[in-house]
Amino acid sequence: MIIVKVGGGKTINWEYICSDITSLINHGEKLVIVHGASELRDEIAIKMGVPSQTVTSPSGISSVYTDQAALDIFLMSYAGVANKTIVAQMQSNGINALGLSGVDGRLWEAQAKPNMMVQEEGKKRLIRDNRTGRVEKVNVSLIHLLLENGYVPVISAPAISYDSQIVNTDNDWATAVMAGALCAKSVVYLFEAQGLMKDIHDSSSVIPTIDKNGLDSFMKFAQGRMKKKVMGAQKALELGVDSVYFGDGRIEHPISNALQGKGTVFS
Amino acid sequence: MIIVKVGGGKTINWEYICSDITSLINHGEKLVIVHGASELRDEIAIKMGVPSQTVTSPSGISSVYTDQAALDIFLMSYAGVANKTIVAQMQSNGINALGLSGVDGRLWEAQAKPNMMVQEEGKKRLIRDNRTGRVEKVNVSLIHLLLENGYVPVISAPAISYDSQIVNTDNDWATAVMAGALCAKSVVYLFEAQGLMKDIHDSSSVIPTIDKNGLDSFMKFAQGRMKKKVMGAQKALELGVDSVYFGDGRIEHPISNALQGKGTVFS
Repeated sequence: MIIVKVGGGKTINWEYICSDITSLINHGEKLVIVHGASELRDEIAIKMGVPSQTVTSPSGISSVYTDQAALDIFLMSYAGVANKTIVAQMQSNGINALGLSGVDGRLWEAQAKPNMMVQEEGKKRLIRDNRTGRVEKVNVSLIHLLLENGYVPVISAPAISYDSQIVNTDNDWATAVMAGALCAKSVVYLFEAQGLMKDIHDSSSVIPTIDKNGLDSFMKFAQGRMKKKVMGAQKALELGVDSVYFGDGRIEHPISNALQGKGTVFS
Repeated sequence: MIIVKVGGGKTINWEYICSDITSLINHGEKLVIVHGASELRDEIAIKMGVPSQTVTSPSGISSVYTDQAALDIFLMSYAGVANKTIVAQMQSNGINALGLSGVDGRLWEAQAKPNMMVQEEGKKRLIRDNRTGRVEKVNVSLIHLLLENGYVPVISAPAISYDSQIVNTDNDWATAVMAGALCAKSVVYLFEAQGLMKDIHDSSSVIPTIDKNGLDSFMKFAQGRMKKKVMGAQKALELGVDSVYFGDGRIEHPISNALQGKGTVFS
């Protein structure tokens, strides 16, 4: 089984991805797709007049504060427009796709993390109502049920907390936890770059292979969103996944190319 | 099997509905839920700056024109916020709900209806790009698969056309077609009224029973959205459903009360 996580950038080419999925399925491979929708989310948030609020922790790590309005926009973009548009595109390519959020059938259960310490104008403040959580538990029987009956699951955040609240969650982390729970052989992360690069402005600086035991020393090359993908790769390997592949989601045969080591391979 | 269609009004009480679903399931009943989100859709459309465009046919029937922007808002509200919020609320009530749109697994397949003749300032005009369709075919094996494995399907529009485009569709009609395809015994339509009323301002004017052979003569009492529900009831009976129940979605035990004939019973 291969878990493919596709980033939410606008230049991701879903036609190429669909074509690759079809040929992998025809070769007997079982696939589970996870997708993002970050650019769409930001567009909708601006149109709705509630742009994302970024907060900074005392240690300097920035993250998005999710109140009810932000959570609704998350649902609109990820579970609404992006998920169903991708499912329809896959269906039009002959793939029997079925879209789910982490809420459905408790697919992704998360430990809620309502408290967050933030640093504002030199002062610390405790936020107590952040609608976010970290996925810990996966309804693997639901995934198996769908796969055994010929459906390709197309999954995205949000998740559901243990007390049944909808919570924003990191798709990259959830992908890793799900891959571990499903005993998947491989995880492929596709995004708008050729792989993990030493210098994002130098296309020849792609790091071809990373040994899982020395992974920490490569974290410094991960900028912005890429940091969470590298953390996802690390988590997936910890949970027993053989190899994690980073690859370019804009090119032809994006999954096959990644699996052939044309991006970055973690193992 | 009972199909319960719940309208998209803001005063619908989902706590009462969840409690009723739980007791019906505990009595061995199989349930499929369909929901609307019309009021939420209108709110989001206004916030997004693209209010619904109503057009009128030469015979005077008004309907919503669905372009890409309207379809996206449909996905945001129905498949995004409403569907996942209802699923989470059901999960918090111990119901193992799983949300799907008609697009997922080709659950609701529709004949696209892109052409619509409209009357504008005394002139007729043909619209050729209306993103709408009428559901004709249902993936019954998917519903059975979920029910047999303990999930309660929670379904809403949009649907998918035969050529795999996402299309806006009438939930009430789709509910009827699905009930027929599933050979359901009963269909319950819950909304913000006590039943089909002769006079919507007179609560004592609820019509208790309607014989399916004389149904046409009651169509005149159906105003606005209610017309589509009565057409749904008629279609469901035509397709072999035993009885259709109209009931109040704002009161305690809304489904049980409707099934006990406290609203309007079509049979």
